[in-house]
Amino acid sequence: MKLCRYGAKGAEKPALVDADGALRDLSGVIADLTGAELAPDALARLAALDPATLPLVEGTPRYGVPVAGSQKFVAIGLNYADHAAESNLPIPAEPVVFNKWVNCLQGANDPVVIPRDSKKTDWEVELGVVIGTRASYVDEADALDHVAGYLVVNDVSERHWQQERGPTWDKGKGFPTFGPVGPWLVTADEVGDPQQLGLWLSVNGKRVQDGSTSTMIFTVAQIVAYCSQFMTLEPGDIITTGTPPGVGLGQKPEPWYLKAGDVVELGIEKLGQQRQEFVAWSREAIG
Amino acid sequence: MKLCRYGAKGAEKPALVDADGALRDLSGVIADLTGAELAPDALARLAALDPATLPLVEGTPRYGVPVAGSQKFVAIGLNYADHAAESNLPIPAEPVVFNKWVNCLQGANDPVVIPRDSKKTDWEVELGVVIGTRASYVDEADALDHVAGYLVVNDVSERHWQQERGPTWDKGKGFPTFGPVGPWLVTADEVGDPQQLGLWLSVNGKRVQDGSTSTMIFTVAQIVAYCSQFMTLEPGDIITTGTPPGVGLGQKPEPWYLKAGDVVELGIEKLGQQRQEFVAWSREAIG
Repeated sequence: MKLCRYGAKGAEKPALVDADGALRDLSGVIADLTGAELAPDALARLAALDPATLPLVEGTPRYGVPVAGSQKFVAIGLNYADHAAESNLPIPAEPVVFNKWVNCLQGANDPVVIPRDSKKTDWEVELGVVIGTRASYVDEADALDHVAGYLVVNDVSERHWQQERGPTWDKGKGFPTFGPVGPWLVTADEVGDPQQLGLWLSVNGKRVQDGSTSTMIFTVAQIVAYCSQFMTLEPGDIITTGTPPGVGLGQKPEPWYLKAGDVVELGIEKLGQQRQEFVAWSREAIG
Repeated sequence: MKLCRYGAKGAEKPALVDADGALRDLSGVIADLTGAELAPDALARLAALDPATLPLVEGTPRYGVPVAGSQKFVAIGLNYADHAAESNLPIPAEPVVFNKWVNCLQGANDPVVIPRDSKKTDWEVELGVVIGTRASYVDEADALDHVAGYLVVNDVSERHWQQERGPTWDKGKGFPTFGPVGPWLVTADEVGDPQQLGLWLSVNGKRVQDGSTSTMIFTVAQIVAYCSQFMTLEPGDIITTGTPPGVGLGQKPEPWYLKAGDVVELGIEKLGQQRQEFVAWSREAIG
């Protein structure tokens, strides 16, 4: 099942995607697609609906963040060995955990703002994991039971802020608009093995990232179990699981970064794709 | 004005503290003390109330988190030169920014859970800043206009997780119960200059921290302005501004840390005080 939220920013409505790829409005069934609606029994109720009985959404509305009210946006760094190498950083012995400020979350195709004076705004296609049930000290064997579904994430990053402005990474990861997610949350049953998904990203039509979640250092199950030792994961929380090689920082013969007017497209097998225009900073642009 | 939320966890009601130190229930005035109620005009409406007309709260109820629904819990590291020295870390050239997972926030006197297998659970008395109006790219001169008030924070930290488990600090700062705040939010007008506040912390009655916000490396105004370059601060967000010397990590001749049964008391001039019993980990204890 593919679930989404559509409509103008701040006024999104829940929907599901039917077999023809059309949106079917869920407003008559649930008030919104919150973390509470991602529990197994709540998802089972949605899955039992006949989409043909739900109102068809006309036109091509904007996609919002597929889940409302996420409390955390956890991120894993250097989770593909080749990306660690291109970043000139050692392969981590255990997951690197950092934070994206949760109000950087935005719809899959919304413009991304290059911060004022930024010189190193970069891209990262990543598999995002959405938590469905509270997870605290869970074992790897049970971890996927806490996952409601998956979505595409562009873990937009300002490298100067991330790497050259102090010991933590959090400065460079949560600028407004730096968290495109979606277009859909695809439920775990429809995705199957999260470690067998191709993922790619292009800048202005040039393919720069082309990988597979099969080459992750730490699997989704390991990541969920690991994070749950340090924090309590809540329904609706999003964990983004690291990026394969090919980010701007790793380009040869030298790094290059995004500028206003660039168009980034990215996608993950079974999860759909995103398209973002990168725009110059202005107060209006960051909302 | 001193504002708080009192009652059982998850069922707190808003209140203000009257001139006699008694709680006066605000449930008939506002639904809850959310970020939206911290805007200047909203605070002015509360300040115009005659506390004597509000219901007196009987007994000595639990204090909850003074503001409901905070979206971010931002933290500043190494903001007192002597604390940087005791941590064997250089004085930062600009603020160190990290994250405390927002669901570690809890009431001022709630028990704190020592994580399973933790050997280095430590204390940090800190001045917390509560944002009242959205702040994005604000200048230092305007920054305090975005502050609704202040509160006491114990920035509880697991040092092994923070310092020895990868390049970021976020693992060691946001375990459940690691964010006692309050008991009150004291509005900025009542606090006056935030750089002239004494702050202290005792473990089992032994005074270990005794400092003043006058020795911060970066002032509250500088911190708010700085953070607003990297993220959009929202009403209700909490920024905790670093700790003076005297944490467990810095004890001589060698560090010592908290164990089950220890009692930590801490306070800040004008902002009240906290008392936490540290307890052993159990699934029940972390809620």
